[in-house]
Amino acid sequence: MADEENDNPMNELMRALAAADGSALLSAAEDIHYADLAALYENLNDEARDFLLKTIGPELATDLVAELPYPLIEGALDHFKPAQLRVLLGNLSDDDRVDVFQVVSEEAQVRFFSLLGPRDKELTRNLLKYEEDTAGGRMTTHVGRITADMTVKQAIAVLRRDREDAETLSRIFVVDAQGRLVGKVRLRDLAFNTWDTPIRDIMAEATEYTLASTDQEEAARILSRYDLVVLPVVDEFHHLLGVITYDDALEILQEESTEDIEKLAAISGEQSEVSYINTSATLHYRRRVAWLIGLAFVSIASGYVMFRFESVLAKAGVLALFLPMVVAAGGNSGGQAATMVIRAMALGEIKAGNALRIAWKEARTGLYLGLSLGITIAAFIGFILPRMKQNTGANFDFIHLAAAVAVAITVQVLSATVLGAMLPIAARAIRLDPAVVSSPSLASTVDVSGMLIYFTIAGSILNL
Amino acid sequence: MADEENDNPMNELMRALAAADGSALLSAAEDIHYADLAALYENLNDEARDFLLKTIGPELATDLVAELPYPLIEGALDHFKPAQLRVLLGNLSDDDRVDVFQVVSEEAQVRFFSLLGPRDKELTRNLLKYEEDTAGGRMTTHVGRITADMTVKQAIAVLRRDREDAETLSRIFVVDAQGRLVGKVRLRDLAFNTWDTPIRDIMAEATEYTLASTDQEEAARILSRYDLVVLPVVDEFHHLLGVITYDDALEILQEESTEDIEKLAAISGEQSEVSYINTSATLHYRRRVAWLIGLAFVSIASGYVMFRFESVLAKAGVLALFLPMVVAAGGNSGGQAATMVIRAMALGEIKAGNALRIAWKEARTGLYLGLSLGITIAAFIGFILPRMKQNTGANFDFIHLAAAVAVAITVQVLSATVLGAMLPIAARAIRLDPAVVSSPSLASTVDVSGMLIYFTIAGSILNL
Repeated sequence: MADEENDNPMNELMRALAAADGSALLSAAEDIHYADLAALYENLNDEARDFLLKTIGPELATDLVAELPYPLIEGALDHFKPAQLRVLLGNLSDDDRVDVFQVVSEEAQVRFFSLLGPRDKELTRNLLKYEEDTAGGRMTTHVGRITADMTVKQAIAVLRRDREDAETLSRIFVVDAQGRLVGKVRLRDLAFNTWDTPIRDIMAEATEYTLASTDQEEAARILSRYDLVVLPVVDEFHHLLGVITYDDALEILQEESTEDIEKLAAISGEQSEVSYINTSATLHYRRRVAWLIGLAFVSIASGYVMFRFESVLAKAGVLALFLPMVVAAGGNSGGQAATMVIRAMALGEIKAGNALRIAWKEARTGLYLGLSLGITIAAFIGFILPRMKQNTGANFDFIHLAAAVAVAITVQVLSATVLGAMLPIAARAIRLDPAVVSSPSLASTVDVSGMLIYFTIAGSILNL
Repeated sequence: MADEENDNPMNELMRALAAADGSALLSAAEDIHYADLAALYENLNDEARDFLLKTIGPELATDLVAELPYPLIEGALDHFKPAQLRVLLGNLSDDDRVDVFQVVSEEAQVRFFSLLGPRDKELTRNLLKYEEDTAGGRMTTHVGRITADMTVKQAIAVLRRDREDAETLSRIFVVDAQGRLVGKVRLRDLAFNTWDTPIRDIMAEATEYTLASTDQEEAARILSRYDLVVLPVVDEFHHLLGVITYDDALEILQEESTEDIEKLAAISGEQSEVSYINTSATLHYRRRVAWLIGLAFVSIASGYVMFRFESVLAKAGVLALFLPMVVAAGGNSGGQAATMVIRAMALGEIKAGNALRIAWKEARTGLYLGLSLGITIAAFIGFILPRMKQNTGANFDFIHLAAAVAVAITVQVLSATVLGAMLPIAARAIRLDPAVVSSPSLASTVDVSGMLIYFTIAGSILNL
């Protein structure tokens, strides 16, 4: 009801921006979620960005800036004066602040660092030690910490002091005097127990945790597997350093899926932080060109095989009809197998020891696929082609042609399927990302084998 | 330290299973997370499964069963006697119980339903009304509910009663007398305010929510975008029906990513609930064969073009050297563009109105890519080939050959890039999933245009 009477705050904000009406802009911005404000900001021109940021001020802009795509962050911060920047940088949560320092220029790093308070300086320096894509690089240190010898009352007093700081109080961790992780309690356990209950009596073992040096994707998978809201991050002496939260895990897993999808299509480089539509054509070009040129040169090998067998084609032109089919069937079936294996690896379903079992599974799958294709195509050739009554330039019967194509396509599909499944496993064995075995690079490789298989088998069955 | 002295519970469990030692098995299983137990269960033979389930009993088996891949659930439940099943089904959370009813056979549905208590019967019947892949189909009704006129003390009393039921108390929702959603509070707001504070004073507006009929992926994206732990699900009258939790969202987004990755590789059908390694070769075969056969027939079109232009190839055999390159470059560049657009659509970055802007962006990207490839290849042909001094069967100079290949590859890459970007948008416009535009189907399509472009351009530049 209320929604229909009032106006949509997003429309109001756009109107206020157009009219350069500061007070209307501020009141609309206060009603809009920072994720929506950040998405809007990305689509504004520089003048509008400046007016928006200056109007809402550093307090309201903090969450907006933290939500921005990385390449836009430095530009956004440059709209503020040092005194405002000091407020904004101080307001950022520690993990977001580290992200800012990791993505701005060196000059800005120095300038921004000088604006931090002494505690934030130390915290930021400590967090910057961890690699960007590790659990340590993604964690926040803002987490509820209590000790086992406290009572519920004491614990609540400690947490009350930190409550606006802590990103979540869904999990509160229990540490010993040295700060080592010894257990966990839920806020509900505190809220629903009497005030003199010792924490020791209600805490549970913290069985799930991760090292700060663990890869961020691995950490996100642990959180996801065990349905945790937060995953504690510890050092090698089991000191509690911080936590990875469920929203970080969501973001990490989405990024990793996007990365795998792009790699599978032979798109290289870091995925653009800006959305597809706001990424320049030049950047799109740069991420695609190297693979395209590399693959083009691989294709010369196929061309060379075709060139060498030109005489066979000249003798039996009808072979050309089925050449693209045999060749493409290898790329298609190999790509299917590679994709299944790469995704299963990404989901942690496959370990190195499974290679033989996978080869056997894909060999059977590839054989069934190859035979199905071969029989279908042989039937097509045997029944349809003779009835088309056109000059196919062939001096042999269609039964032999059907047999040649069927055998070639079966061999091509079987070998491409096994190769497609094995290459990602081999890539991981030599510590490469399995997803480098992109569908196009696999296709270009089995194009060569496809040509060889086709011409050799057809040549021998048809006596060419 | 403790870890090294004690044995790994997973090893203990395997030993106990092998020795059929029930009490050792039970004590090991109690120390293992249900997610790990479920993963283990998947790899056991039927006898071991039976022994495991019967030993741990229905209480401990509840979480294990909820975590199992769908096809294994009915079989697992059949290991229990009716009295045990009654306990297990009663212990399941409402959303997990609905999942069970959605995946078992009709006969089992009737049998299991008769074992439910009257309240669970009604709840299950209500939840089964929603489609499996909607917010309503994924939600749990176990959520903390209070009213605005309660005090903190009254609210805590209500929540205390429900606390073991509620999946999370990170968010507690405020409803009016009719059960309509009016606001939300955090447990920390209750824990850290005085007992006589009215809820009205500390509640916040519940601005993010979703309709029960909303697609599950859309609901998961809302939760992710706004960093929510739980997303309230309402009906069209704004009655609070339940919540989607962050762990459901994680699962949904991972499922959707896998689905897109598989579709892009021309793998059809529902993604297997069982892990890759436990999926039979026959099922792998069934999910791949239809596309493979379909694509093979599309390739006959390429074959036909090649067959018609056989005379051109016969006149200038050297053209064969670059035919696979020109053809494959189209599939590769088109696949890159399609992948970028499909992923951007899945992440909600692209709307229907953006089509023209995308076409313009991809036209420029495609032109840059085509020119880069064309120039590289022309240079290669102009400088390398003449120095190879072999009989290439050519009766024309290499400058003309280089020009012909360069122009053809530029046209092919430009047109394939734009086509690749536009097809997913067209698919969505006619309400198909954009990911049906798989890389292989796109490649098979632009293979045909590539052959035509190459032979036409080469024929005219070289006067063949």
